[in-house]
Amino acid sequence: MEPTLDVVGVGNAIVDVIATVDEAFIAEHDLNKGAMTLIDADRATSLYAAMPPGIEASGGSAANTAAGLASLGSKAAYLGKVRDDQLGEVFIHDLRAAGVGFDVAPGSEGPPTARCLIQVTPDAERTMNTFLGISAVLSPDDIDDSLVASAGITYCEGYLWDMEIAKEAIRGAMAIAADAGRTVSLTLSDSFCVDRHRDEWLDLLTDKVDLVFANEAEICSLFRTDDFDSAAKQIGSMVETAALTRSAAGSVVVSGGETIAVPAVSVTRVVDATGAGDLYASGFMHGLANGADLARCAELGGIAAGEIISHIGARPQVALTTLI
Amino acid sequence: MEPTLDVVGVGNAIVDVIATVDEAFIAEHDLNKGAMTLIDADRATSLYAAMPPGIEASGGSAANTAAGLASLGSKAAYLGKVRDDQLGEVFIHDLRAAGVGFDVAPGSEGPPTARCLIQVTPDAERTMNTFLGISAVLSPDDIDDSLVASAGITYCEGYLWDMEIAKEAIRGAMAIAADAGRTVSLTLSDSFCVDRHRDEWLDLLTDKVDLVFANEAEICSLFRTDDFDSAAKQIGSMVETAALTRSAAGSVVVSGGETIAVPAVSVTRVVDATGAGDLYASGFMHGLANGADLARCAELGGIAAGEIISHIGARPQVALTTLI
Repeated sequence: MEPTLDVVGVGNAIVDVIATVDEAFIAEHDLNKGAMTLIDADRATSLYAAMPPGIEASGGSAANTAAGLASLGSKAAYLGKVRDDQLGEVFIHDLRAAGVGFDVAPGSEGPPTARCLIQVTPDAERTMNTFLGISAVLSPDDIDDSLVASAGITYCEGYLWDMEIAKEAIRGAMAIAADAGRTVSLTLSDSFCVDRHRDEWLDLLTDKVDLVFANEAEICSLFRTDDFDSAAKQIGSMVETAALTRSAAGSVVVSGGETIAVPAVSVTRVVDATGAGDLYASGFMHGLANGADLARCAELGGIAAGEIISHIGARPQVALTTLI
Repeated sequence: MEPTLDVVGVGNAIVDVIATVDEAFIAEHDLNKGAMTLIDADRATSLYAAMPPGIEASGGSAANTAAGLASLGSKAAYLGKVRDDQLGEVFIHDLRAAGVGFDVAPGSEGPPTARCLIQVTPDAERTMNTFLGISAVLSPDDIDDSLVASAGITYCEGYLWDMEIAKEAIRGAMAIAADAGRTVSLTLSDSFCVDRHRDEWLDLLTDKVDLVFANEAEICSLFRTDDFDSAAKQIGSMVETAALTRSAAGSVVVSGGETIAVPAVSVTRVVDATGAGDLYASGFMHGLANGADLARCAELGGIAAGEIISHIGARPQVALTTLI
């Protein structure tokens, strides 16, 4: 049966709290610059208290990707968990208003909606500190099997792998997608996340994943190497297609023995790297859904990523259809 | 006794929900473009549902002014009411992190923290729809008398006048300030707000207010005239000092029979007018607190307003000390 949905994203449903800081702030608070670090409620409270004034904006890696897909004109849905609190309300609104289908029932008890305390430094790098809250308890019950089966691509966030129950939910979603003959996609999310789950992921990539997204640090971490070309070759032998981003150096697609390098689009001023990888995935999968060749998919990824890094926040500020 | 605080602001404690819309949205939802309209909880829900994805940022007129004062290096405090909910937490954090003293206890029952649904149109105009929530029940008990008495200027938001109990809180604060020999200031806030309270405000301005802030529409509404010069003359006979803003035409200060016109600073690109009046008041009162003459006060107001309209959101994105 033809898919009725282009992509369903599965991930941690998070509201971002974004503030601009100087390098001294990163050092003073012992933050892991450029990475995503999981923090508990107490650390979230103390770190937030130390942060300068900020803004709140919906985030969450796969949710950003889904919002980008909708902005490009693809049909996207999302699976993730919020609480019935004010930040949950914001998350639901922003995703639905972006045109993404989102019907997971908000939790009525337990921890609050997840938030990510993001520090943006003058070099436009983002440092993320995530309090997972209720997003971590996304359970197999939250996965709508028929929705997953109806999507051409099921796109899962590596970040979810940090919690046992969410991991189960992903494995379930991947199995449904595979049974329906759909494409199963995974983003490696973060090099530290790769480090925590290397062995499991190597198995998962070999057996269950068709399309993988990773940046240079993540793919190199996966294969414990500093040699990007070697990592690209290795991943190419494990999955059907790997889309590997290299920041300003563009991206490399490895598929069926072929390697395609595509330059990055030029961006007048890089303001905030948050969401670059997420939006690259939006563009790439929008291309796939529309039958574009892989070079064009990578180009579309670069265009979507270029928009997102030109401003604060990880959701598009213009209709991406106007850029392609 | 010398004041130990430069300014205490009294106002509706609000978190802004800001989205960019086209002109058609304003028409379709029957919004009062450029104005501040009070909405109830049901309308807030339905209007929010119709809005595109947005961002959340702390707002509230007098709170923006206090944040601007702190950013300029003045000592500022704030009196306003939030709930002990997530948006209340955001409001408290952003104000304290900006360096503003804020110690009003959050309410533990009753309506939620106030929010203002703001639509920014391509002409950079902002249309505000405020659900007052708990901010409307700021009561005389929430006013810290010794804090008010310690401030050189007590700056009150006209917006507060819409609720009986908050009006009582303002009248109380003004009386304490006057008894302590301090400057009492009022901003007229909004031309429709002026329309709702004209007679009371004419009395209040004559008897209780030393320093008034208003834009052209507000001051003309107060005297039911289209003639700005006539309105300026009339307000000049009622208060010690009136600082009147005229958008791109700069501002006019009327004080002791003297009228001083000061041009606006040039802004490369006006993005969002939200907070322009609030930040003008910050700059003006920073000047007063530092013994500047009125022309320089107006100039400082223009500089602070110029920063705020160059980006989305009503709180400064750079330390305003770097601009003066």
